Amino acid sequence: MINWKNSDELKSFNDLFALKDQVKLAEVMEGANGAERVKKYSVPMSIGLSYNYAAKQVDDTVLAALSKFAEEAQLIEKFEALYNGEVINTGEKRLVLHQLTRGQLGSDVIAEGVNKRDFYVEQQNKIADFANKVHNGEITNEKGEKFTTAVQIGIGGSDLGPRAMYLALENWAKSNGKFFMDAKFISNVDPDDATAVLNSVDVSRSIFILVSKSGTTLETLTNEAFVKDALKKAGLDASKHMIAVTSETSPLAKSSDYLAAFFMDDYIGGRYSSTSAVGGAVLSLAFGPDVFARFLDGAAAEDKNATNKELTKNPAMLDALIGVYERNVLGYESTAVLPYSQALSRFPAHLQQLDMESNGKSVNRFGDKVNYVTGPVIFGEPGTNGQHSFYQLLHQGTNIIPLQFIGFKNNQTGNDVDIQGSTSQQKLCANVAAQIMAFACGKKDENANKNFEGGRPSSIIVGDKLTPEVLGALLAHFENKVMFQGFAWNLNSFDQEGVQLGKTLAKKVLAGDTQDALKAYSELLEI
Amino acid sequence: MINWKNSDELKSFNDLFALKDQVKLAEVMEGANGAERVKKYSVPMSIGLSYNYAAKQVDDTVLAALSKFAEEAQLIEKFEALYNGEVINTGEKRLVLHQLTRGQLGSDVIAEGVNKRDFYVEQQNKIADFANKVHNGEITNEKGEKFTTAVQIGIGGSDLGPRAMYLALENWAKSNGKFFMDAKFISNVDPDDATAVLNSVDVSRSIFILVSKSGTTLETLTNEAFVKDALKKAGLDASKHMIAVTSETSPLAKSSDYLAAFFMDDYIGGRYSSTSAVGGAVLSLAFGPDVFARFLDGAAAEDKNATNKELTKNPAMLDALIGVYERNVLGYESTAVLPYSQALSRFPAHLQQLDMESNGKSVNRFGDKVNYVTGPVIFGEPGTNGQHSFYQLLHQGTNIIPLQFIGFKNNQTGNDVDIQGSTSQQKLCANVAAQIMAFACGKKDENANKNFEGGRPSSIIVGDKLTPEVLGALLAHFENKVMFQGFAWNLNSFDQEGVQLGKTLAKKVLAGDTQDALKAYSELLEI
Repeated sequence: MINWKNSDELKSFNDLFALKDQVKLAEVMEGANGAERVKKYSVPMSIGLSYNYAAKQVDDTVLAALSKFAEEAQLIEKFEALYNGEVINTGEKRLVLHQLTRGQLGSDVIAEGVNKRDFYVEQQNKIADFANKVHNGEITNEKGEKFTTAVQIGIGGSDLGPRAMYLALENWAKSNGKFFMDAKFISNVDPDDATAVLNSVDVSRSIFILVSKSGTTLETLTNEAFVKDALKKAGLDASKHMIAVTSETSPLAKSSDYLAAFFMDDYIGGRYSSTSAVGGAVLSLAFGPDVFARFLDGAAAEDKNATNKELTKNPAMLDALIGVYERNVLGYESTAVLPYSQALSRFPAHLQQLDMESNGKSVNRFGDKVNYVTGPVIFGEPGTNGQHSFYQLLHQGTNIIPLQFIGFKNNQTGNDVDIQGSTSQQKLCANVAAQIMAFACGKKDENANKNFEGGRPSSIIVGDKLTPEVLGALLAHFENKVMFQGFAWNLNSFDQEGVQLGKTLAKKVLAGDTQDALKAYSELLEI
Repeated sequence: MINWKNSDELKSFNDLFALKDQVKLAEVMEGANGAERVKKYSVPMSIGLSYNYAAKQVDDTVLAALSKFAEEAQLIEKFEALYNGEVINTGEKRLVLHQLTRGQLGSDVIAEGVNKRDFYVEQQNKIADFANKVHNGEITNEKGEKFTTAVQIGIGGSDLGPRAMYLALENWAKSNGKFFMDAKFISNVDPDDATAVLNSVDVSRSIFILVSKSGTTLETLTNEAFVKDALKKAGLDASKHMIAVTSETSPLAKSSDYLAAFFMDDYIGGRYSSTSAVGGAVLSLAFGPDVFARFLDGAAAEDKNATNKELTKNPAMLDALIGVYERNVLGYESTAVLPYSQALSRFPAHLQQLDMESNGKSVNRFGDKVNYVTGPVIFGEPGTNGQHSFYQLLHQGTNIIPLQFIGFKNNQTGNDVDIQGSTSQQKLCANVAAQIMAFACGKKDENANKNFEGGRPSSIIVGDKLTPEVLGALLAHFENKVMFQGFAWNLNSFDQEGVQLGKTLAKKVLAGDTQDALKAYSELLEI
């Protein structure tokens, strides 16, 4: 029997606060003890990845306390309930099934008479079949020419995740004979976004993927109309250039406006939809269905790790609870995600949505206000770029920002040059190693301007190379981390009521139905 | 006589704390009072822009207190000292002259016997001359073919600002007959960054701009070698394809490896260098020298506004002091920058560097530890994209994040379609107006999940259209805002010691000269 209790109703959570000053990071990371920690505080993930938390402010005592909290908060039981098909999204009264898009962790989940795993696999197969026909020329434009570009039209979860995944694999695919088509993305309702993308492609050779679960997203439908207008002006038949990814109940599902429609459902939240048809269509078109399948395999493998009951063997749960300790006990407000890989340039933007939209909440899953802080601000840019930018504040600012590094032993393309005795990849890796130690231990200097206090915590996920499997595992790790944090804080991580009010007010502005300050702002912007 | 005192040594700063609960934002923004505030709390900027702070937690009382602080902290006198050529960058014992790259606010500044305004203008003219010759075919590749692409090689301030500015004007230039060449950017030492850019261009028609003030930046020199290697492999003469932007004293300055060299100097900090040769070379090549000149004119016009002694007539100083009030008195730790313009997609990343590298410091300009918090975390993405992502936390998270909106009445390309009674641009503007009000006033709902408490402060900069002049003014506004905050906190906003330690340690790793935990991390990454 699961007890859904607020964190501060649990003894083990309140006990954590006694451990606030348990670990002096700058001290424990010095010398042989530091080296020992690097070897000890590491947990294997799937696909050769590992999560290393040596430079976090934890030790065996803190870990034992977190482990008690994991148990008392029933984190594993809650995850089991989720993947076995309970209504975990209480606000919207929905199941939460994105893990089923890549594997099956528990019992069959039947909803509305349908085995949901079968349903998701069926959609993947339909997409694979479609993508293969596009690649081999069975499906072409009106003139019988092959399509060369896929353009995704979507926003939020229909944009950030798929875009980040596309960018993460683009150069890998090009270097490994797995590149079929360019992908572009139109998201913003700013007309210059669609205009720029349309000007950068040959529309006659482009296939547009309209992605909207509800089929009612204002920005997406507006951009669809924008694109159809462009296709029409180019003398093209829009219905020969567009496919839809939506739910079976949406107005788009049966429309003849589309070459094909692929389905997701209400049990896949937008920000968790990269492994569903939302990511599947564009990634299968760009890189082929087998690459997408490998991406799913990586995610499925990492999901399995998240079922481990033992905290120090469950990287997602461990990452989550260290984050809770940092947020609630140590009082840190933000977290920076710092991948040392240019391919992951938009991965922080995806995690920003995933985390902040899931756990940026002040009420628990029953709608009662919580008495503790919840989700942090997430931001980040790739290293080494960030080192020459905002790292100054991370090193010497007045607030401490926990850091999440990601690094790979090898680069994706295999292309590299040896300059002054080391390759670029070695320089990249040397920098991330150096940063971890600089943040942890600092350096005493008599000139206070050059003094580094250290004590700034970080973890690193290390992998061999960013392949489709590795990317899937990384994605699943963070999805599961965010989920565990939501469970720990007793939140519903799967709704997003915070975006509704703005939509309602925007409609009022467009209808001219505004008054007072809103009207004044409308006038200021000359709407 | 200027007194460089810490904030908390000033009575007017300490007096601010009594005003912590002065303004109940959700209340004052309701009804007719809210409309009145929108009209009243607005200050004109240059080039038709205005800074509207109606939805900030200020009123006449707070403004009067901030005005006293501005006076006691001698913010205007400090700016005057800066633009008249005093050694404001005390850490590095340097003048701070980026404003001189676009105009002259005070007396002649002579350093090392050179009139610096003349020097910067001379470099602009040299760049303009060079760019014109590239455009008209006087300067070509070895085969006499015109260059079609400019590739900037630089990192940090040599990348983020110029890249953000290029993206901000790319579509405007294409729609206004001002587009001469594509620009690309190589920054990361990750070899896949250079590889991907090189694969995306015709190297035989590309001109590479190496940007490094010192001529010693590891990433940039590594990427230069990477590019030279590629040029050589393509049978091309690298010296016919490369120009340098550097200081006159750098090893690059007189090298025969470059077609031409353009100069900046030690008085231009990297993050303040967009209006120097660092931005000038790539923007003049891409859009022509006259567009770059218009960009400078906008920045110069906005600099003039920053000299106004009256707080409510000085948008940069006002923005700065509202930020200080939010940071120190109200205790907010982050600030989100939210431009409702896809063209400004990387403007937040530039401001992230500008702000966090300038004011992310714990010691004052004399190297003494300060007793108050300084620069905030800066992050952001364009609206409406962000609305479908991290806005959930902004609306309903447990911490309050102040917001900086930017909006334009018209889009850049002029291309738009009317859908369901409104254009995309109108929808974009309606959304930003709606968000401001949703954040400020919230909405009561019996369902706590749908309840919005409001009280979340924002300001908006509104402009007619994002032109080169407007972009220049925007850039200068934020540069001056950051400078005023640095003055207020008694920081040196112009050095960046926080990035040095990591560099030193990275070199040790590459030399194999590591031990203990650093060695363990090196092994983990198999360096």
